[in-house]
Amino acid sequence: MSLPLGFTASPADLLRTTPGFSLSEVATNAAPGFSGKKHDGAAALAVRAPILAQLQEQLFAESRFSGKRSILLVLQAMDTAGKGGIVGHVVGSVDPQGVQLKAFKAPTDEEKAHDFLWRIRPAVPSPGMFGVFDRSHYEDVLIHRVHGWADADELERRYTAINDFETELAAAGTTVVKVMLNVSPDEQLERLTARLHDPTKYWKYSPTDLDERGYWSDYMDAYQKMFEKTSTPTAPWYVVPADKKWYARLAVQEILIETLAGMNLQWPAAHFDVGHERARLKDA
Amino acid sequence: MSLPLGFTASPADLLRTTPGFSLSEVATNAAPGFSGKKHDGAAALAVRAPILAQLQEQLFAESRFSGKRSILLVLQAMDTAGKGGIVGHVVGSVDPQGVQLKAFKAPTDEEKAHDFLWRIRPAVPSPGMFGVFDRSHYEDVLIHRVHGWADADELERRYTAINDFETELAAAGTTVVKVMLNVSPDEQLERLTARLHDPTKYWKYSPTDLDERGYWSDYMDAYQKMFEKTSTPTAPWYVVPADKKWYARLAVQEILIETLAGMNLQWPAAHFDVGHERARLKDA
Repeated sequence: MSLPLGFTASPADLLRTTPGFSLSEVATNAAPGFSGKKHDGAAALAVRAPILAQLQEQLFAESRFSGKRSILLVLQAMDTAGKGGIVGHVVGSVDPQGVQLKAFKAPTDEEKAHDFLWRIRPAVPSPGMFGVFDRSHYEDVLIHRVHGWADADELERRYTAINDFETELAAAGTTVVKVMLNVSPDEQLERLTARLHDPTKYWKYSPTDLDERGYWSDYMDAYQKMFEKTSTPTAPWYVVPADKKWYARLAVQEILIETLAGMNLQWPAAHFDVGHERARLKDA
Repeated sequence: MSLPLGFTASPADLLRTTPGFSLSEVATNAAPGFSGKKHDGAAALAVRAPILAQLQEQLFAESRFSGKRSILLVLQAMDTAGKGGIVGHVVGSVDPQGVQLKAFKAPTDEEKAHDFLWRIRPAVPSPGMFGVFDRSHYEDVLIHRVHGWADADELERRYTAINDFETELAAAGTTVVKVMLNVSPDEQLERLTARLHDPTKYWKYSPTDLDERGYWSDYMDAYQKMFEKTSTPTAPWYVVPADKKWYARLAVQEILIETLAGMNLQWPAAHFDVGHERARLKDA
C-alpha cells in the first residue's frame, strides 16, 4: 500500500512506541513523516477516507461469512486533545453500520462495585466491527494513579490484567490499536480559552477540566508508565502529536489504514452459484 | 428555516402520509418538490449536511444538562431500496458520538420467546441521541403478515401495541420519524442484477432476496395496511420515492432537518460563571 501524497514515511512506524520511548522527549506540535502543510493534510485526509471506508467494508463483509476479525481503536488523551475530532473526522468517514462506539464516562456505582474490566468486556467489538473506545480501561491506570485511588500493588495488578485482556482479544481476532493524542499544556490552554469565548461551545466546558489540568505532570508520568507497562507488540501504543489537529487526524487515519491493510482483507467469494442466480433473476 | 437550493416545496409536507394515502398511487421514480437533477441533488445534500450535523449537536448538547429529548429514525423498505445508503450518506454526516444505530435482524430464539416489542424497547435512543432503526418492530406487521406468521387478531393487537409504544416514546421526549423507502420492482431487479455482476457486492446478495421478491404485492398490501394503522400525527410515516437514490437521501435529510428544526433547539447556556472561569484560565 503506497503512502498518501505528502507522507514521506509511515506514521504508524514513526509513532509506534518501542522500548525506551520517552513521552517527555517527543514534540506535540510536529507532523512526523508528513511534508505538507495544513491544507495538504486536509486534502490527504479526504483522499484517503474512501480507502479506510473500503477496508472497513471488507472487514464487515468478511464477518457475514463466519469471519471473526474486528478492530478496536482505543483513544486516550488529556481534555481538548481532540478525541472527538478523531471520532467525527476519521471514524465518521466509514459506514456507521460497521462502527461500534463506546464512550466511557466516570463509572456508575454498579460498575465501581466490579473489577475495572467488568464494564469494558461487553463493549468489545463484535466480529466485523470497527470498535472505538473514547477513554477506556486505561483510565484505571491514569486518573486512578494520578489521584492515588489505586495503590502501587493494585496498579501493577491492573497493568497485568490489561495485557492479559488484550492478549485474549488478539487471540479472539480483535486487532487493538491504542492511540494517545499528545497535546501540550499551552495548546490546551488555547483550546479551553476558545471554548470560553464561544457560546456554542460552553456546553463542552466544565470547571473541573481546569482542576485536572493542575495535575499535568502527574498525568504525563502516568502515561509514561502506561506506555512502559502496556505497549506490547500485539497491542502497541501510538503517541500522536496533537497540537495540529489536522495532523493528528491524518496520522490516526493512516495508522488505521496500515493496520487494516496488514490484515489482508478480501471481498468474500460468492456463497451461491452466480450463474444460477443470474438465470433466476432473469425470470424474476 | 429556508428550503435548500432546488427544493420548491417541503419534502416533509409532500411525503408525509395522511388519511386516504394510497401506496399504489404514488410514483417511485419521482422527486417531489425538487426541481433539480441528480448533480443538483448531490450538491444540495453536501450543502445541507452541516446543518443536520449542527442540529444533532444541539440535541446532544441539550442532553448534557438534563435535556431528555431524542430523535428516532425508523427505516423500512424492500431489499435494495437503499436503507444502507441513508445510513451511510445521511446519518453518516453527523457526529458518530451522537448516533445510536440498531439493525434488527431475524429474531433470536430468546427474542422470539418474548413479545415482539421486548427487543425493541432497550434499543430506543438515550436522551440527546439520534437513534436509527434499520428495520424495526414494523417487521412484525410486515413479513409476519405476508407469511401468515401472525393471524388477523394478533396483527390488530400489534398495531395497537405499536401506537401505544410510540405515544409513550413521544411522551418521554423521543420524536419518531418513520420512513418507508419506496422502490419499484423493476428498480430492485436492476440493483440485484448489478450485485450479481460485481464481485465486491456478492456478499450483499442472498438467494432468499429473490424469494421475498416473489411476494411483492403482498408486501405492498402489508405496507398499505401499516400506514393506515400506524401513521399518526405524533409518529407519521413518510413514503419516500427511492428509485432515484440521490433523491431519497436528500428527502430523508430534509425531513430530519425539518423535524429537528421544529424542536427549537438552542445551544445550552453556560452552567458556570464565564467571567470567573476566564479569569481562572489566565492563571492556569
